[in-house]
Parts: sequence; C-alpha cells; structure tokens
Amino acid sequence: MIVVGELINSSRKAIAAAIEAKDVAAIQKIAKDQLEAGANYIDVNAGIFVGKEADYLKWLVTTVQEAIDAPCCIDSPDPKCVEQALAVHKGTAMVNSISLEKDRYDALLPVVAGTDLKVVALCMSDEGMPETTEARLKIADKLINSLTQNNIPLENIYVDALVQPVATNDSFGIEFIDAIQAITNKFPGVHTICGLSNISYGLPNRKFMNQMFAVMGIAKGLDGLIINPLDKAMMASIVTAETLAGRDNFCCNYLEAHRRDAFVW
Amino acid sequence: MIVVGELINSSRKAIAAAIEAKDVAAIQKIAKDQLEAGANYIDVNAGIFVGKEADYLKWLVTTVQEAIDAPCCIDSPDPKCVEQALAVHKGTAMVNSISLEKDRYDALLPVVAGTDLKVVALCMSDEGMPETTEARLKIADKLINSLTQNNIPLENIYVDALVQPVATNDSFGIEFIDAIQAITNKFPGVHTICGLSNISYGLPNRKFMNQMFAVMGIAKGLDGLIINPLDKAMMASIVTAETLAGRDNFCCNYLEAHRRDAFVW
Repeated sequence: MIVVGELINSSRKAIAAAIEAKDVAAIQKIAKDQLEAGANYIDVNAGIFVGKEADYLKWLVTTVQEAIDAPCCIDSPDPKCVEQALAVHKGTAMVNSISLEKDRYDALLPVVAGTDLKVVALCMSDEGMPETTEARLKIADKLINSLTQNNIPLENIYVDALVQPVATNDSFGIEFIDAIQAITNKFPGVHTICGLSNISYGLPNRKFMNQMFAVMGIAKGLDGLIINPLDKAMMASIVTAETLAGRDNFCCNYLEAHRRDAFVW
Repeated sequence: MIVVGELINSSRKAIAAAIEAKDVAAIQKIAKDQLEAGANYIDVNAGIFVGKEADYLKWLVTTVQEAIDAPCCIDSPDPKCVEQALAVHKGTAMVNSISLEKDRYDALLPVVAGTDLKVVALCMSDEGMPETTEARLKIADKLINSLTQNNIPLENIYVDALVQPVATNDSFGIEFIDAIQAITNKFPGVHTICGLSNISYGLPNRKFMNQMFAVMGIAKGLDGLIINPLDKAMMASIVTAETLAGRDNFCCNYLEAHRRDAFVW
C-alpha cells in the first residue's frame, strides 16, 4: 500500500495561509508529521494560487525536502507547473495526474514519457466523468496502453478510477470498487490509487464512511490511497485491511502497529 | 443483509448458566435486545449440554418466541436436535447447518428437503476444512446442487464459506472473501453467511479486525452475518458497507441509522 499524505493542499485555509506567508516551519512540521505517521509520498498542491502556482509548488517541494527525505506527489493539472516542480525535486516523484482529456494528456505526456516517475492516471476523458465499471475500464485501458507505449512501465502507473458520491447515485460506490478489481485483473502489476472524500459528499459521519470505503477498496485490490495519515482510525483500518487482504507476511505490520500503539482500533 | 444475533449460545458462561437455571427473563431480555438492535434471526445454541441439547434447544426456541415475534436460527450439528427444535418453532426458521460431511448431510437432508426453511450450507466435507477459494467453491457447488435437487430453493440457501484465522496463514482472509465472490458469481441468487471471530484468532484488536473483515466480505457480496448486534461499531460498519455496496436505496438506511444515533461511527 502506497499512502500519499494529503495535508499540504492549498484548498485548506491554514495551508494557503502558510504558503502565502512562506511559513517554512509550518509546512515542514506537517510534512514530517505525515511521514512519521506512515506516508510514503507527501502531496504538494498550490492550485488555488492562479498565476503563482508554479512558484509556490517549487517552494513547497524544496521546503518539504529540506526537512524530510521523502518524495513528493506533485498535485497539479497544469503540465507547466508539474515540470517546474519536478526540476527542483530530489528523487523519484509521483505526478498527479495525467488523464485522457486531450489537452492535458498531450501537454503532460512529454513530461513523464520515458522517465521513472510514478504517474497517476486519472480515469477522466473529454466525454466527462465515467459512472460505471465499464466506462472506467475503457478509459483506464486506453490510458494504460498509451502510457506503456510511451515508455512508462506498467508498475509506475497508478490508476485513479475517480470516486464519486454515493449520495448522488446508489451504485457509485460499488461501480468504483468493481472498477478497481476489473482494472487490476486486466493489467496485473498496475497500481490503483484514489482520494476518498468524494464518496461521502453530502452525508453524515463522513470520516467513518471514507474509512469503510478504503477497506472495501482494499478488498478489491486497491493499493494506493491519498489520505490524511494523521487520522489514526483510518490508518488502523488500512493496516488491518491489508493484513486481511493477504498483504502482510505473518501479520508483522499489524502486530507492529499494535505494539507501537500508534493507531485507534 | 441478514443479521443473525449470536448471543444465545451455550458456549458463553452466562448463557449456559441461564439455560441450566431455566432463567426465562434472562434469555428473553437478550433475545429482545438483539431484535431491537437489528437482528433478523435469533441464534439458539445448547451445544455444550451433551444428552440434554434437544430439550434445552426446544426450551430456548419456546422461551425466545414467547417474548418476541422473530424466527430463530437453530444452531446444532445434530439433526435430531434440529428436528425437535423445529417442531416447536413458529414461522420459518434458519437451520445452521448442513455440510458435505456424509453422516451430517444424510441425516439432516430429510429434515430440510422440500421445506421453506433457510438452510446454512457449511463448506466442510469429510476431506476436512477447505483452505483455498477453489476448494470452497468445489464444496459449495456440490452442496448447492444437491440441495436444490432436493427442493430447497436457491434463495433459501446460505453458504457459509468457513472463516479461518489469518494468523495461521496470510492468505486465509483473501481466500475466504474471494470465495464469497466466486460462489455468488456462479450461483446468482444464493446467499452467503458467516461468523467472523475465527478470522482474528490469536491476534490483538479482535473486535476491530472482525469489523473490517465484515466490511471486506460485504464488498465481495457477503449478505449474511452471525454477529453480536449489540456491538454498535460493528452495526455501523455493516450499515455503511451496505450503503457503499449499492444495497441502500437513496442511502435511507444509512441516514435513518444516523438519525436514530443508535450506532458508533
């Protein structure tokens, strides 16, 4: 399981303020906390700052990597911003995301083709957001084939099958997790990743629902999550689901997490 | 989702004592509490009382049904005990369980054939307990075919694919949930059911692990659980997973459970 720590995102007020104030200590603390809590990648997003996104993204990458030895997930739909952030990034970053939308695809492909970057492939096309398992598989199929043809190894591709709110349509949860299974069955070795919060949009007990949805995704093969790693109930759910999914030799991670008493069971 | 309330089981000391003392009030309170918490069937088990099991089972059925208008799940491997308990049962009981073990199968089949009873079909044969998805599917296939040939409608069969401890073998969790999916894919309309506690045997945080395993099972199609319905975190997990699995029109059950504030989210 790859955990991307989602907290350094400019859509959060405290983060936007820290970015504008160039508050190095604040950003580095959140990066460090997420790493210690179990994040493998630190998401950096400066999307709300139109015109300044590239500069702020570069500053975020540099600031994070001055404090911790971990890769970032460069979170921007703008290929120019991604490219500039990558130029200052040390090690192998994750890029979030390419999609099948023609403009976005054409502009970002040259940035990622032939590299060893981890690439999030978002199941979105110019026809809009897919709603069914079949529609997701169709987009994922095209994306995976064209990315691998452009020398991006299958194992560096993280398909984001696009979570949509179950309050909008009863079938949006099951169609998503079935898509995870269909994609991983069809392309053994490819990874899948997603954010969770859209699933519970408009409903109560959102944190709990997101947690249950992560567990259901893992049952179907999901192996990447963009989450708040400081959420101890979420982390407990993930480590437990991983153990139950047969991805934890001799339950070592589960027992170690229990001994550290780090999570909320 | 069918919930079988598991609490009236003689393997629990307080229940064994209540049965021996013929404590009507104690048994009726536990039956009532489980029904109010969401149980669809009340399990009755007197298995520890060798020689007296049939008498005690009959007493349990009568005692429970005097207090509440709900069916029981007659929980005994002994066909004679099942038959006697059924004779005093009002409405349509669940029988737990028939299996592919020859003696048990031959003796229980005449009791359930041609009836409208709900029949738990345990994936166990004289060759022992199945460990893989394939082994479970093979037993389920034989059981389902022979039960339907004996006039037990597919929709009255609840396959118990036999949960085994993940501490014994890393793959025991995933093999089980994959079996749920394989069985429900091959026999659309058949039900599946299980107890959970074996999965976490030998590990810490057992209640939490059982809860996560229920959610993973539901993701794969599980639609019956033998649980403690008074466990409010478990009930919250189940109702949430059901909603996410597309089994809750307009999220009505989820919202209603939230409004009642009955569960722990």
